[in-house]
Amino acid sequence: MRLDQLETPVLVADEKLLEQNLRRMTELLKGGTLRLRPHYKSHKCAALALRQLSLGAVGMTCAKLSEAEDLVDHGVRDVLIANQIVEPGKLMRAAMLAAKCRLTLCVDDEDNARMLSKAACAAGTTIYVLVEYEIGMERCGVTDPEGYLRLARLVSELPGIEYEGIQAYAGHVSHMADEQERRAFTAANEDRLRSLIALLDADGLSPHTVSGGSTGTALIKAERGLYTELQAGSYLFMDSTYRALGLPFANSLFLLSTVVSRRAGLAVLDAGVKSLGVDQEDPVCLDMAGNIIKADRIEANEEHLKLFRPERPLELGEKLLLIPGHCCSTVNLHDRIYLFSGGAVTGRLAVTARGCSR
Amino acid sequence: MRLDQLETPVLVADEKLLEQNLRRMTELLKGGTLRLRPHYKSHKCAALALRQLSLGAVGMTCAKLSEAEDLVDHGVRDVLIANQIVEPGKLMRAAMLAAKCRLTLCVDDEDNARMLSKAACAAGTTIYVLVEYEIGMERCGVTDPEGYLRLARLVSELPGIEYEGIQAYAGHVSHMADEQERRAFTAANEDRLRSLIALLDADGLSPHTVSGGSTGTALIKAERGLYTELQAGSYLFMDSTYRALGLPFANSLFLLSTVVSRRAGLAVLDAGVKSLGVDQEDPVCLDMAGNIIKADRIEANEEHLKLFRPERPLELGEKLLLIPGHCCSTVNLHDRIYLFSGGAVTGRLAVTARGCSR
Repeated sequence: MRLDQLETPVLVADEKLLEQNLRRMTELLKGGTLRLRPHYKSHKCAALALRQLSLGAVGMTCAKLSEAEDLVDHGVRDVLIANQIVEPGKLMRAAMLAAKCRLTLCVDDEDNARMLSKAACAAGTTIYVLVEYEIGMERCGVTDPEGYLRLARLVSELPGIEYEGIQAYAGHVSHMADEQERRAFTAANEDRLRSLIALLDADGLSPHTVSGGSTGTALIKAERGLYTELQAGSYLFMDSTYRALGLPFANSLFLLSTVVSRRAGLAVLDAGVKSLGVDQEDPVCLDMAGNIIKADRIEANEEHLKLFRPERPLELGEKLLLIPGHCCSTVNLHDRIYLFSGGAVTGRLAVTARGCSR
Repeated sequence: MRLDQLETPVLVADEKLLEQNLRRMTELLKGGTLRLRPHYKSHKCAALALRQLSLGAVGMTCAKLSEAEDLVDHGVRDVLIANQIVEPGKLMRAAMLAAKCRLTLCVDDEDNARMLSKAACAAGTTIYVLVEYEIGMERCGVTDPEGYLRLARLVSELPGIEYEGIQAYAGHVSHMADEQERRAFTAANEDRLRSLIALLDADGLSPHTVSGGSTGTALIKAERGLYTELQAGSYLFMDSTYRALGLPFANSLFLLSTVVSRRAGLAVLDAGVKSLGVDQEDPVCLDMAGNIIKADRIEANEEHLKLFRPERPLELGEKLLLIPGHCCSTVNLHDRIYLFSGGAVTGRLAVTARGCSR
């Protein structure tokens, strides 16, 4: 089957570029101390998680318990949920899941640590804990070193849970277009982390793991050597937002789309908010030969994408490849990703964790 | 089961308010000439479509062929796909579907009309056609009356397809906050339509159907009497964007969410871009008693919602009801909607057309 015979809108991935990205990350980290724990949120395909593990990833990162369950269902045995879990039912599910894998969770609150401990004790399992440190993203995490130390000490003392180290994620740095800016922010954040680690060392609570980072800061973190685990996710697909950063990864993910209406100065495609993540940059539009088609303005409606004044007229029924603005939010809208190579459809991936937000 | 015992994030609907909205639209249109053909894109639940039909809707509107197939699978016998279909495989599927229901499609191109005719002839079915007229939304549709007349004439002459009337949708008017502005734009658009209809009448091509409109323009269209069919969808759920318009419908749809982290000046919820449509306004946050909780700023990450400086401190594990910014794009992220009444879970709806973008 030819790629342009798939009904649209449909998510497709260039098999060679995808494999190239997977291998490139392995090579970039080779010989260093930074180990890859790729984020499942970016692809949500169990088959790709297993491929990442076969290439040397030490385990998987995910955002939600239901993603972790999906990973374990598919045979993954080392999972970090890089988030807090506070609901009683979910704490029980997490404690049960810890019987089937090495499960690590994040904690930033003393009561939550106690609840987690209780759930693990009730299930007779051990849950590993990264105490989260806030390094400028204004999201979860303990904000002061003394508070962090107190919580780490509590976690290390409570039964059923074990203090494993630090979660410190600076998502706001990931997409800074200027590499020097990304380096400067990363350096400042790591200075704060080094102070924290000195405090923990002095208290006999040296972290085994310092986990965080993204595709945008992967190389910087690999060079600097402080983090032990990298949670990059987008590197295997990339998107139009990361594309602007000049990273050594290729755009391998596209939404295949069809022109359903056009007139002078306007082309309307059949892909919109319901098939493309619109929480970051605009998509980039390519023709089937891979040439970028620029437009004065792009607007996404629910099921339409409008290209205003495209640089060449588009044909009715013409197929286009859209580089999504954000791979993670786009993947979550689809049940399948078709693989292609040189214009031919070569396979199909199930997005096994699509919609797993609980 | 209590509402606050559901694991989050989860989409929930207040059964009484939902029913109240459904009945209110029926009452508002009673005695007039505007018939309701509700848009499936807003709820994507076959059970709700059947409820709308039982309350007097003349048929369903949808955006995509796969949504139409879902409706027909569930027994709906009159379906309008308010869009163009140009892919050969989809044209064949549409022609086959027309054997199982009265199927109407939109067309804005002569070649497309010929393709549709050919597919219907091959399948031995009849497809009804609304020729789309562009009334300011800068999307699909014929832009000039003479071009419209030519296309309508062609459609009326081609075998296998029948000219049914006009599709004219002014989505850009739906959300204008000022009612006078909505009225003025609607009046101007209808003036253009009346000129077109005069031209069609003179040519013996009087439209049986003039279809369009939305929740935001429903009452205006009902008063004016030009449109014969109303494609409103959001009225049964509403959202924070429509909430601002002061329409006679209540917010019945909420994303139940949990506070997973908080500190002075910040609360972090477990709902983000992957469970909330973020293509329109910010969500509105309510506590479980229905009180609005204001915040200085709301920011959605993939799986987090950050409330900056909420007007009262939120508790860890506290449940909140979020009114989504856009009900249509939010529903598409979920497989189920739980119904509740007075704090108790009373039922569950399957979002049967979730992800049906093809």
